Amino acid sequence: MICEIAQLEVMQGKEAEFKSAIDAAIPLFKRARGCQGLRVMRSQEFPSRYWLIVDWISTEDHTVHFRTSPDHAEWHRLVRPFFSERPKVEHAEVIAESIAP
Amino acid sequence: MICEIAQLEVMQGKEAEFKSAIDAAIPLFKRARGCQGLRVMRSQEFPSRYWLIVDWISTEDHTVHFRTSPDHAEWHRLVRPFFSERPKVEHAEVIAESIAP
Repeated sequence: MICEIAQLEVMQGKEAEFKSAIDAAIPLFKRARGCQGLRVMRSQEFPSRYWLIVDWISTEDHTVHFRTSPDHAEWHRLVRPFFSERPKVEHAEVIAESIAP
Repeated sequence: MICEIAQLEVMQGKEAEFKSAIDAAIPLFKRARGCQGLRVMRSQEFPSRYWLIVDWISTEDHTVHFRTSPDHAEWHRLVRPFFSERPKVEHAEVIAESIAP
Protein backbone atom coordinates (compact mmCIF):
# COMPACT_ATOMS: atom_id res chain seq x y z
CA MET A 1 0.00 0.00 0.00
CA ILE A 2 1.11 3.54 -0.77
CA CYS A 3 0.54 6.56 1.41
CA GLU A 4 0.23 10.06 0.15
CA ILE A 5 1.72 12.31 2.82
CA ALA A 6 0.79 15.95 2.38
CA GLN A 7 1.94 18.76 4.65
CA LEU A 8 -0.55 21.59 4.42
CA GLU A 9 0.13 25.08 5.74
CA VAL A 10 -3.07 27.01 6.38
CA MET A 11 -3.41 30.77 6.74
CA GLN A 12 -3.63 31.83 10.35
CA GLY A 13 -7.21 32.51 11.36
CA LYS A 14 -8.60 30.28 8.61
CA GLU A 15 -8.31 27.00 10.52
CA ALA A 16 -12.05 26.61 11.22
CA GLU A 17 -13.01 27.28 7.60
CA PHE A 18 -10.31 24.88 6.46
CA LYS A 19 -11.73 22.19 8.75
CA SER A 20 -15.17 22.66 7.17
CA ALA A 21 -13.60 22.37 3.73
CA ILE A 22 -11.85 19.15 4.76
CA ASP A 23 -15.12 17.69 6.02
CA ALA A 24 -16.75 18.55 2.70
CA ALA A 25 -13.85 17.02 0.77
CA ILE A 26 -13.66 13.65 2.50
CA PRO A 27 -16.28 12.01 0.25
CA LEU A 28 -14.18 12.98 -2.80
CA PHE A 29 -11.38 10.79 -1.52
CA LYS A 30 -13.60 8.01 -0.21
CA ARG A 31 -15.06 7.42 -3.65
CA ALA A 32 -11.75 7.73 -5.49
CA ARG A 33 -10.40 4.68 -7.30
CA GLY A 34 -7.84 2.90 -5.11
CA CYS A 35 -8.42 5.00 -2.00
CA GLN A 36 -8.29 2.84 1.11
CA GLY A 37 -8.82 5.56 3.67
CA LEU A 38 -7.53 8.87 4.86
CA ARG A 39 -6.66 10.79 7.96
CA VAL A 40 -6.32 14.50 8.57
CA MET A 41 -4.26 15.72 11.50
CA ARG A 42 -3.47 19.12 12.98
CA SER A 43 0.01 19.76 14.29
CA GLN A 44 0.38 20.60 17.97
CA GLU A 45 3.76 22.29 17.55
CA PHE A 46 2.66 24.29 14.47
CA PRO A 47 -1.12 24.81 14.80
CA SER A 48 -1.52 26.16 11.27
CA ARG A 49 0.03 22.99 9.84
CA TYR A 50 -2.13 20.05 8.86
CA TRP A 51 -1.16 16.60 7.66
CA LEU A 52 -3.26 14.71 5.15
CA ILE A 53 -2.44 11.04 4.87
CA VAL A 54 -4.27 9.06 2.22
CA ASP A 55 -3.88 5.32 1.71
CA TRP A 56 -3.90 4.32 -1.94
CA ILE A 57 -3.56 0.90 -3.52
CA SER A 58 -1.01 2.33 -5.98
CA THR A 59 0.80 5.63 -6.48
CA GLU A 60 -0.95 6.03 -9.84
CA ASP A 61 -4.34 5.93 -8.13
CA HIS A 62 -3.31 9.29 -6.72
CA THR A 63 -0.98 10.79 -9.30
CA VAL A 64 -2.85 9.73 -12.42
CA HIS A 65 -6.42 8.72 -11.72
CA PHE A 66 -7.30 11.09 -8.88
CA ARG A 67 -5.29 14.08 -10.07
CA THR A 68 -6.99 14.05 -13.47
CA SER A 69 -10.49 13.64 -12.06
CA PRO A 70 -13.17 16.27 -11.56
CA ASP A 71 -13.13 15.34 -7.87
CA HIS A 72 -9.54 16.54 -7.65
CA ALA A 73 -10.52 19.88 -9.15
CA GLU A 74 -13.27 20.07 -6.56
CA TRP A 75 -10.79 19.23 -3.78
CA HIS A 76 -8.59 22.09 -4.92
CA ARG A 77 -11.54 24.44 -5.16
CA LEU A 78 -12.49 23.63 -1.56
CA VAL A 79 -9.10 23.83 0.17
CA ARG A 80 -6.74 25.93 -1.94
CA PRO A 81 -8.11 29.29 -0.73
CA PHE A 82 -6.83 28.45 2.76
CA PHE A 83 -3.25 27.45 1.96
CA SER A 84 -0.54 29.89 2.95
CA GLU A 85 2.02 28.04 0.84
CA ARG A 86 2.17 25.26 -1.70
CA PRO A 87 1.55 21.86 -0.06
CA LYS A 88 4.48 19.48 0.23
CA VAL A 89 3.32 16.12 -1.10
CA GLU A 90 5.16 12.84 -1.30
CA HIS A 91 4.38 9.16 -1.52
CA ALA A 92 5.66 6.45 0.75
CA GLU A 93 5.42 2.70 0.80
CA VAL A 94 4.29 1.06 4.01
CA ILE A 95 7.13 -1.24 5.11
CA ALA A 96 5.95 -2.09 8.62
CA GLU A 97 2.66 -1.75 10.41
CA SER A 98 1.40 -2.93 13.73
CA ILE A 99 -1.62 -2.45 15.93
CA ALA A 100 -0.88 -2.35 19.66
CA PRO A 101 -0.86 -4.22 21.94
CA MET B 1 -5.88 10.42 19.48
CA ILE B 2 -2.44 11.91 18.94
CA CYS B 3 -0.03 10.95 16.22
CA GLU B 4 3.70 11.21 16.49
CA ILE B 5 4.98 12.04 13.02
CA ALA B 6 8.70 11.50 12.64
CA GLN B 7 10.67 12.15 9.47
CA LEU B 8 13.78 10.00 9.53
CA GLU B 9 16.70 10.50 7.15
CA VAL B 10 18.82 7.37 6.83
CA MET B 11 22.37 7.18 5.54
CA GLN B 12 22.51 6.04 1.93
CA GLY B 13 23.41 2.37 1.71
CA LYS B 14 22.14 1.65 5.23
CA GLU B 15 18.47 1.20 4.31
CA ALA B 16 18.43 -2.61 4.69
CA GLU B 17 20.11 -2.47 8.11
CA PHE B 18 17.74 0.26 9.15
CA LYS B 19 14.76 -1.89 8.13
CA SER B 20 16.08 -4.71 10.33
CA ALA B 21 16.44 -2.28 13.22
CA ILE B 22 12.88 -1.09 12.71
CA ASP B 23 11.60 -4.66 12.77
CA ALA B 24 13.48 -5.25 16.03
CA ALA B 25 12.11 -2.03 17.52
CA ILE B 26 8.42 -2.53 16.81
CA PRO B 27 7.78 -4.53 20.00
CA LEU B 28 9.18 -1.61 22.04
CA PHE B 29 6.37 0.59 20.75
CA LYS B 30 3.68 -2.08 20.88
CA ARG B 31 4.18 -2.54 24.59
CA ALA B 32 4.49 1.16 25.40
CA ARG B 33 1.84 2.77 27.56
CA GLY B 34 -0.76 4.50 25.39
CA CYS B 35 0.56 3.21 22.07
CA GLN B 36 -2.33 2.32 19.76
CA GLY B 37 -0.29 1.27 16.76
CA LEU B 38 2.43 2.39 14.41
CA ARG B 39 3.35 2.49 10.78
CA VAL B 40 6.71 2.88 9.09
CA MET B 41 6.88 4.11 5.52
CA ARG B 42 9.66 4.68 3.00
CA SER B 43 9.46 7.68 0.73
CA GLN B 44 9.32 7.08 -3.00
CA GLU B 45 10.57 10.53 -3.94
CA PHE B 46 13.41 10.46 -1.35
CA PRO B 47 14.34 6.77 -0.86
CA SER B 48 16.57 7.45 2.14
CA ARG B 49 13.67 9.14 3.95
CA TYR B 50 11.39 7.16 6.22
CA TRP B 51 8.26 8.19 8.05
CA LEU B 52 7.37 6.78 11.44
CA ILE B 53 3.80 7.41 12.51
CA VAL B 54 2.81 6.27 15.98
CA ASP B 55 -0.68 6.55 17.39
CA TRP B 56 -0.72 7.48 21.07
CA ILE B 57 -3.65 8.04 23.41
CA SER B 58 -2.02 11.25 24.64
CA THR B 59 1.03 13.33 23.73
CA GLU B 60 2.49 12.61 27.17
CA ASP B 61 2.43 8.88 26.48
CA HIS B 62 5.16 9.68 23.97
CA THR B 63 6.92 12.73 25.35
CA VAL B 64 6.94 11.73 29.01
CA HIS B 65 6.28 8.05 29.53
CA PHE B 66 7.96 6.56 26.48
CA ARG B 67 10.85 9.00 26.24
CA THR B 68 11.90 8.34 29.81
CA SER B 69 11.62 4.55 29.49
CA PRO B 70 14.38 1.99 29.00
CA ASP B 71 12.57 0.95 25.81
CA HIS B 72 13.17 4.42 24.37
CA ALA B 73 16.87 4.10 25.07
CA GLU B 74 16.80 0.76 23.30
CA TRP B 75 14.95 2.30 20.34
CA HIS B 76 17.68 4.91 20.05
CA ARG B 77 20.38 2.29 20.37
CA LEU B 78 18.84 0.35 17.49
CA VAL B 79 18.15 3.12 14.98
CA ARG B 80 20.36 6.11 15.76
CA PRO B 81 23.45 4.67 14.04
CA PHE B 82 21.62 4.87 10.72
CA PHE B 83 20.37 8.46 10.85
CA SER B 84 22.10 10.94 8.56
CA GLU B 85 20.51 13.85 10.39
CA ARG B 86 18.47 14.55 13.47
CA PRO B 87 14.88 13.27 13.07
CA LYS B 88 12.12 15.85 12.73
CA VAL B 89 9.40 14.90 15.19
CA GLU B 90 6.06 16.51 15.81
CA HIS B 91 2.68 15.61 17.25
CA ALA B 92 -0.65 16.04 15.57
CA GLU B 93 -4.23 15.56 16.63
CA VAL B 94 -6.46 13.47 14.40
CA ILE B 95 -9.31 15.75 13.31
CA ALA B 96 -10.86 13.58 10.60
CA GLU B 97 -10.52 9.96 9.65
CA SER B 98 -12.32 7.76 7.23
CA ILE B 99 -12.01 4.29 5.82
CA ALA B 100 -12.96 3.96 2.14
CA PRO B 101 -15.33 3.27 0.58
